[in-house]
Amino acid sequence: MNSEKKKITFTTIGLIRTPYKSSFCPYQPVEREEGEARVILFPEYQAGLEDLKSFKYIYVLYYCHLCSGEPSLKIHPPWAKGQEVGLFASRAPERPNPIGLSVVELKRIENFQLITNLIDVWDETPLLDVKPYIKELDQKHDANYGWLEEVDGYHHLIEHIRGIPHKH
Amino acid sequence: MNSEKKKITFTTIGLIRTPYKSSFCPYQPVEREEGEARVILFPEYQAGLEDLKSFKYIYVLYYCHLCSGEPSLKIHPPWAKGQEVGLFASRAPERPNPIGLSVVELKRIENFQLITNLIDVWDETPLLDVKPYIKELDQKHDANYGWLEEVDGYHHLIEHIRGIPHKH
Repeated sequence: MNSEKKKITFTTIGLIRTPYKSSFCPYQPVEREEGEARVILFPEYQAGLEDLKSFKYIYVLYYCHLCSGEPSLKIHPPWAKGQEVGLFASRAPERPNPIGLSVVELKRIENFQLITNLIDVWDETPLLDVKPYIKELDQKHDANYGWLEEVDGYHHLIEHIRGIPHKH
Repeated sequence: MNSEKKKITFTTIGLIRTPYKSSFCPYQPVEREEGEARVILFPEYQAGLEDLKSFKYIYVLYYCHLCSGEPSLKIHPPWAKGQEVGLFASRAPERPNPIGLSVVELKRIENFQLITNLIDVWDETPLLDVKPYIKELDQKHDANYGWLEEVDGYHHLIEHIRGIPHKH
């Protein structure tokens, strides 16, 4: 069996421009917040964007380039009231392979730049891939919130995740 | 600007066991087909699986290890009646970075092995990451089928994608 660790090398295909240049970066895409992100492919890949604009939502895969070192396998996610959970039960960027994944609305394409709602990454995050989010494959009507449902103040937490303005 | 291609090295964290050992492999997860896949993490990562079982669906990210060479930026997807589309408007495994992404139902965890519905990959596909599919972040009620909606025989095509048994 193919049971040994192997190294795999990928090459960045572009970058993501966001307003997050300094100390603040939200934890997940915040649809209701104003502002946009731009997903920019290097020129040699731009021909592959044809027909993408027919999709309302896309997956953006990127390299969480500011992650450093060996991640812990047990983490304390933000907003989770100190609860400890397994790393793979979280979307924390510090992972054995720090590949970030966001589902974002594709608002329009301008000069081969994908204009999307805000993505929760630092400006100039290296891009690995773009894929269409396809209704029947990716939309799971009976999805749940997992362990988040057990967190005290869960409804408040969901408002944070959804980026809904609310009073504390 | 961070506008140069960079190489990034990842390390496989496990592998995916499926029944697809020879010439047949479906194109996308087929929920209604019988059979299961097993997502197996190497022992040093298994502690990170705690709490994952609270989620109904997970993302599985893997390396499409049987892809070879330079992908074309324009492709002719299966079932698309010969239509040519941009590579990034498709889920084709042959991509600049052949990172595969599937949303699958997590049926149960047995001895640190994730038992899921079938995943459309070759047996022993190298695993890169596992993430929870979180209701509010990943479930897009108004997602569409993009260019697939323009394909002649679109409803028939969707039945294929969904894995629904039907008469031709």
